[in-house]
Amino acid sequence: MSRRAAERLLRRLGPLAVEQPARGITHTQNGYSNNIVNSRRRFHCVPSPQYPQHGPRTTGAYDVQKSAGKASEVQKRAFGTAATHVLRNPAYAVLNSDDVSYFKSILGDSGVVQDEDRVAVANVDWMGKYRGASQLLLLPKSTTEVSKILSYCNSRRLAVVPQGGNTGLVGGSVPVYDEIRSVSIPCLQVIVSLAGMDKIISFDNVNGILTCEAGCVLENLSTFVENEGFIMPLDLGAKGSCHIGGNVSTNAGGLRFIRYGSLHGNVLGLEVVLANGTVLDMLTTLRKDNTGYDLKHLFIGSEGSLGVVTKISILTPAKLPSTNVAFLSCNDYISCQKLLLAARRNLGEILSAFEFMDHHCIDLAMRHLEGVQNPLPASPYKFYVLIETTGSDESYDKSKLEAFLLRSMEDGLVADGVIAQDISQASNFWRIREGISEASVKVGAVYKYDLSIPVEKLYDIVEEMRSRVGDNADVLGYGHLGDGNLHLNIVSSKYDDNLLAQIEPFVYEWTSAQRGSVSAEHGLGLMKAEKIHYSKSSEAVSAIDGLHQETAGPQFNPKSLQGSTSVCTVLKVPPIILQLNVKGMDLLYQVQISDVSKAFPGSVRKDGTDRRELEEIVRSRS
Amino acid sequence: MSRRAAERLLRRLGPLAVEQPARGITHTQNGYSNNIVNSRRRFHCVPSPQYPQHGPRTTGAYDVQKSAGKASEVQKRAFGTAATHVLRNPAYAVLNSDDVSYFKSILGDSGVVQDEDRVAVANVDWMGKYRGASQLLLLPKSTTEVSKILSYCNSRRLAVVPQGGNTGLVGGSVPVYDEIRSVSIPCLQVIVSLAGMDKIISFDNVNGILTCEAGCVLENLSTFVENEGFIMPLDLGAKGSCHIGGNVSTNAGGLRFIRYGSLHGNVLGLEVVLANGTVLDMLTTLRKDNTGYDLKHLFIGSEGSLGVVTKISILTPAKLPSTNVAFLSCNDYISCQKLLLAARRNLGEILSAFEFMDHHCIDLAMRHLEGVQNPLPASPYKFYVLIETTGSDESYDKSKLEAFLLRSMEDGLVADGVIAQDISQASNFWRIREGISEASVKVGAVYKYDLSIPVEKLYDIVEEMRSRVGDNADVLGYGHLGDGNLHLNIVSSKYDDNLLAQIEPFVYEWTSAQRGSVSAEHGLGLMKAEKIHYSKSSEAVSAIDGLHQETAGPQFNPKSLQGSTSVCTVLKVPPIILQLNVKGMDLLYQVQISDVSKAFPGSVRKDGTDRRELEEIVRSRS
Repeated sequence: MSRRAAERLLRRLGPLAVEQPARGITHTQNGYSNNIVNSRRRFHCVPSPQYPQHGPRTTGAYDVQKSAGKASEVQKRAFGTAATHVLRNPAYAVLNSDDVSYFKSILGDSGVVQDEDRVAVANVDWMGKYRGASQLLLLPKSTTEVSKILSYCNSRRLAVVPQGGNTGLVGGSVPVYDEIRSVSIPCLQVIVSLAGMDKIISFDNVNGILTCEAGCVLENLSTFVENEGFIMPLDLGAKGSCHIGGNVSTNAGGLRFIRYGSLHGNVLGLEVVLANGTVLDMLTTLRKDNTGYDLKHLFIGSEGSLGVVTKISILTPAKLPSTNVAFLSCNDYISCQKLLLAARRNLGEILSAFEFMDHHCIDLAMRHLEGVQNPLPASPYKFYVLIETTGSDESYDKSKLEAFLLRSMEDGLVADGVIAQDISQASNFWRIREGISEASVKVGAVYKYDLSIPVEKLYDIVEEMRSRVGDNADVLGYGHLGDGNLHLNIVSSKYDDNLLAQIEPFVYEWTSAQRGSVSAEHGLGLMKAEKIHYSKSSEAVSAIDGLHQETAGPQFNPKSLQGSTSVCTVLKVPPIILQLNVKGMDLLYQVQISDVSKAFPGSVRKDGTDRRELEEIVRSRS
Repeated sequence: MSRRAAERLLRRLGPLAVEQPARGITHTQNGYSNNIVNSRRRFHCVPSPQYPQHGPRTTGAYDVQKSAGKASEVQKRAFGTAATHVLRNPAYAVLNSDDVSYFKSILGDSGVVQDEDRVAVANVDWMGKYRGASQLLLLPKSTTEVSKILSYCNSRRLAVVPQGGNTGLVGGSVPVYDEIRSVSIPCLQVIVSLAGMDKIISFDNVNGILTCEAGCVLENLSTFVENEGFIMPLDLGAKGSCHIGGNVSTNAGGLRFIRYGSLHGNVLGLEVVLANGTVLDMLTTLRKDNTGYDLKHLFIGSEGSLGVVTKISILTPAKLPSTNVAFLSCNDYISCQKLLLAARRNLGEILSAFEFMDHHCIDLAMRHLEGVQNPLPASPYKFYVLIETTGSDESYDKSKLEAFLLRSMEDGLVADGVIAQDISQASNFWRIREGISEASVKVGAVYKYDLSIPVEKLYDIVEEMRSRVGDNADVLGYGHLGDGNLHLNIVSSKYDDNLLAQIEPFVYEWTSAQRGSVSAEHGLGLMKAEKIHYSKSSEAVSAIDGLHQETAGPQFNPKSLQGSTSVCTVLKVPPIILQLNVKGMDLLYQVQISDVSKAFPGSVRKDGTDRRELEEIVRSRS
């Protein structure tokens, strides 16, 4: 394309501006802030009738959610994946009135919620896919209270599910293991909500280091640090409800990942309560600390299975005033890849988003989303790309983006494109990208997959899937290209097991063959707990299982609840060293004992005696 | 300060330039590259007579290091910290000729080094502080070979030390536990060098993802990826010798930390061989993967104590063409802090270094370093700051830096300053900062500490130390202010126990009281293994110990070698579930058994029988 043609295309929505103060998205012009753009970016799913889509949901939300259901139905079908069968482990104890009294003695009456409607809200996930039957919601206000709860539940073998903002997509935050009504005994799992721990502890405004409690809502933290001239290193559609503790526990990705990287790089310190109540203080605010293993990383992304995160210190980058958004089309996938490479090279330090969508996504969005327009003329373009830049100099950043886009058009990487000239256009661009999920739900049934795949192979699965399902469904490919993260949606008018059989396990097997991840940012939860083998080697799965058993006990691990023979393994039970004479030889044994009597109903447990007893038994033979 | 005065000061070394192509440091002008600047930044220590200071040291280095000593002396005193007493654990076996034959059978003759001179080189650390007495150096060429070595050593209970470039500062890479000659039996520790595993496996030039073997020298990788238009996310003075596997194992910090963050954010995948030979494949090249615990983080910074890193995949940022360096003075420490905050805010995305030095450092450097000049006139300035920017636009970046410095002078944060006008000036600025350590060694004795301290308190320890030691020593404070990392050097004409008693344990206790780190980037190694409690809570230390015991066995952990009663605990020994009738009650026990007979000399070990035997013993009582 000639430079003149490129310029003509690029300026479609207004003149190429160098010094036109009313345009662009800055935090000072026209009273708009980056927040306003971000506030249009909401959760990918259609609004639930039970939950408000926007705004923080804190304690007040519990008393208005009466339609969440009476927690009596079994909800076994997880949409978008094969049916998930849930079995409760009878090894866990049943809640009784003494337990409730104990919790009231440490939390007060207000911290122990038994009101059916309030508890019902905590029993169902954000999308209404997973539903539990717990009758007790605990609201601790401090780490000490969390520790007392867990210590007590550990000794009583009560199952616990920790809960943050309950905005997860894979069923990891609701007490599903108690929902099976066919078991004759009443089963109860305790929900421990961190919503009451929502204090900001400190903010270092030289280094941008925030320390806060786990129950702080992400958007509230974002507002707080922005007033100090910083931003949170992560931003999600769910930010009005999700907790920072949940973000850390699920290693949330989101919209700023390409720029600021993962939470493993941004979280500086954690305080975690282990299953047995031990408080693990790793709450450093240092950027560098090479004294021993950096244990906090074990708790980032382990979905509460190793402990409950209670406090966080996190590095917040300086807030930059200038944001620009461009919406582009490309003729083929290879051009999208080359454009990404060129953007990394030429936009370098100001690149803050590189999102892509195929034309199936755009067509669907135009059909099903109200008030959304394609800023580019209808055409045979195969792919669309949204590029965002964030920097410290409005006019320079814009010139840089424009120069880059002109060059990319001349080089044939970009077929057509526009730069948003105001906040409304920028919001429209983002609305298209973020409305795809909402639009797809309107068709009927959606099979959703969240995959990490090497960028050069990323679109292959979309095309292969399209040829597999043929006319039975529409296949959409979109996502965070800059992070190698594909959202693959297969959309049909209704749920159909034959269609599912065409999709799974193929999608997992294909992803596994590319050494991809079957859960890029959503986690395993209930939905994908059994899919871990597709993305982790058997040695890694063994090591994970081993770590879990040794570190926290299985209370928080859904997987271990299924038919596990071992419960209540707590950290650091000291081993016994026994000296034995066996067949005439002196031998020394290290014996690690834990009483698992409770794993089998009907057996009797005698506190404190198991270790001594076995020791006696063994010694008597030496 | 007025704008005019500020401009006059700032332009001292040349006119303020906007478009002067011969100045500045770019990768295209005058054939200079960023590499050239970086190549002047070398290891902080005075050159060792045994080791070349520059350039890659690969296999060829072994045969020219004849002066490294005969490895017969006990070197117990670790300079700069209290004396470290080393005791060997007699539980480990003694190497015999069968072992050597076995190693030759898997590695060939060339992979088994017994030549005294070559082994002697591997027995001493870079600075000559720590010295071992191993007589065997193994050079595996593949992961399979590493696995076979470790599996064999594990079953034979031979102690192993993994070694990369051997450039560490805390004695973590040499076989020191074998040096005690007073033990009557000959003791031998096997050195496993990764130098033979130096292949680049793949490079994804769209995403900048490098996959390579652990023995690759950092500088070689740097050269390789720069040819592809990327840079390594870390850069160290030791890059000509250090291995990427060692960098990962010690979580190396270095000069690009402020810009690209820690290796926890940049390493995408690892392959690790555990103590028992299990190969843990976590070698993903994905930016996002939330399927189960992210185990690789356990191996980043655990100094080889959990396993030997054999392969790495790492994210490399795009190479940016423009670098600028400024050398500034400030009147007080609070101005340094404010300048850092302003630099973060105004230089934002192009800031790539913010280093500080007090005037004691500058005075010393001017006295002891040849050919180094203070670019600022002699004056009563208390502090000096070096700022570097790296970006994608030469003239814009320079204008931005100049505007920022002018504003900072007007605001009184900067008392005086210059911007380097060419590569030689930039190198001189860096030479001052990096020559401090070398200059301090020339005085005589140096007590070196590498501390992380919250920035606002960071200089307090320097002043307190100065008042403690009085006229006995000179106290220098400098370091990576942008990372909160202070290098505290106490310099005296000779080593003196009384002086040491004035410094330690005060320096550790003070740092601990600020919740700082007693090892920001150097690791624990031998020097600080017992100092971990100053920076980690007792619960964290317990958890670390527990993890170590359960995950890898103690072969690689110096700490566990000291008087530990447990050896050879390997990953995933399945527990036995025993059903017993004790005093009329049915009880179930989980019993974890490992044979520790070898922990006590004189006892007899019978392979494979321990589990069955104990099971029989216990069952016979039920």
